[in-house]
Amino acid sequence: MKEDREEKRRRLIAESGKGVSEAYSSSDHPIIQAINTYKEIEKIQGLVYERMEEWYGIYFPEFKSLGFDAYASLVSEIKEGKDADEEKLGKILNDEAHGKKLSGEIKRAGSRPELAHNEYEVIKEIAGVEKNLSELQSKLDSFIKESVEKSMPNIAYLVEYKIAAELLAKAGSLNRLATMPASTVQLLGAEKALFKHLKFGSKPPKYGVLFKLSQFSNASKKQRGRLARVYATKICIAARADAYTKRFIAEKLKESLDAATEKIMKEKD
Amino acid sequence: MKEDREEKRRRLIAESGKGVSEAYSSSDHPIIQAINTYKEIEKIQGLVYERMEEWYGIYFPEFKSLGFDAYASLVSEIKEGKDADEEKLGKILNDEAHGKKLSGEIKRAGSRPELAHNEYEVIKEIAGVEKNLSELQSKLDSFIKESVEKSMPNIAYLVEYKIAAELLAKAGSLNRLATMPASTVQLLGAEKALFKHLKFGSKPPKYGVLFKLSQFSNASKKQRGRLARVYATKICIAARADAYTKRFIAEKLKESLDAATEKIMKEKD
Repeated sequence: MKEDREEKRRRLIAESGKGVSEAYSSSDHPIIQAINTYKEIEKIQGLVYERMEEWYGIYFPEFKSLGFDAYASLVSEIKEGKDADEEKLGKILNDEAHGKKLSGEIKRAGSRPELAHNEYEVIKEIAGVEKNLSELQSKLDSFIKESVEKSMPNIAYLVEYKIAAELLAKAGSLNRLATMPASTVQLLGAEKALFKHLKFGSKPPKYGVLFKLSQFSNASKKQRGRLARVYATKICIAARADAYTKRFIAEKLKESLDAATEKIMKEKD
Repeated sequence: MKEDREEKRRRLIAESGKGVSEAYSSSDHPIIQAINTYKEIEKIQGLVYERMEEWYGIYFPEFKSLGFDAYASLVSEIKEGKDADEEKLGKILNDEAHGKKLSGEIKRAGSRPELAHNEYEVIKEIAGVEKNLSELQSKLDSFIKESVEKSMPNIAYLVEYKIAAELLAKAGSLNRLATMPASTVQLLGAEKALFKHLKFGSKPPKYGVLFKLSQFSNASKKQRGRLARVYATKICIAARADAYTKRFIAEKLKESLDAATEKIMKEKD
């Protein structure tokens, strides 16, 4: 009897494993995992940066807003004021003039509080983690690019690969994305605002993930709504080609998309 | 005129730097930074773990709840089902029988979905970050222990060093902690619950940071309140010794604390 139960347990584990395998055997799954991880690590980098800057900033208030990687390199290489010569700073910042300016400020500021025993080693370790996070981000980035261009070549031709990946993640799968009407694709990623609109009557959203389109940067509010609409329409056609026919039709789509974009951008608000 | 302004800017930067230096020249600052970073990294480790398990779990649903380090090691060393022999698993898990069981389950489950190109390398990188976070945590931990035992020897003799560091962080400085009444120390870290009590009349909190005392694990709700009270009283005395007299008086404090604890734990609810 006991043996039977163990047997059954094994069978069930094996079966559920297979079920999961089948559900995820598509090429969608790695892309969705990668883009979700990318977004999470992006937030985490910010959190670690805040900690690092708050701690190290007591000793070097001169360093600020230099970006994750430059800041982490400074932390790793500069323990005391005397380490901060202009050549070193210029090299780390990749900007000779900036290095000279900072080095001057540090010299003029004079003495700093003394580091406690082992304190610098710990701060340096935080900077190390920040660098590891940057490396992970760049690996995730190339992986997303490569995978999106392989399995969604048409969509990837129209929008930046990370936007394509986000649309996929929001839709859940390429097949689901391909069966969605343009109006749904246009609002992918704007679910919260949409529900708020339906429930409380706030203004309806006009775009979600598509907000990250580079074309949006120079567009007015009204133009953005129109741009989102034409992009969503073309993305839908591209998604169907990626999911079903597997033919590359994006060149023509891009041409008409560019023409429509130009027209919209010329229109007055 | 332009030169003057630049001159003034430099002077002001230098002065503000000095002001900051003086404010933080105590030994409190590194401990506060370290414990706050420790708590943040603890959360981040959980976030990264979730991502890693969700992704890798598609390929190896057999691995679950093994803890950060063991899981990260598994990810780093096992790419395919055939890598998961019992010897390797037993070694990673430091448990021969567990390794054998898992290896058997993996063999019986049979084929797994295929990894995409470069996918494993990315998952492995996430595991690497998880390991880096663990290393950072252990460095922070030793740093906190060392610093707390050095600058708050009396408090560190009474409670676990991380609790001592959290009390310090909540108080803001050792001097502030030393001037607080026991009732305030008792509630350090319970600020939210306290304001909720004052504003909405919910039940008043009985402890904050002190909730993490190991003595609490076997105590009833009522006993916990009493324990928090006697601990807070002794911590206050210890804090004054650490901040002002710098004498080590904690042995006696600990004796009477232990006696009080024993008495409370014997009392009926």
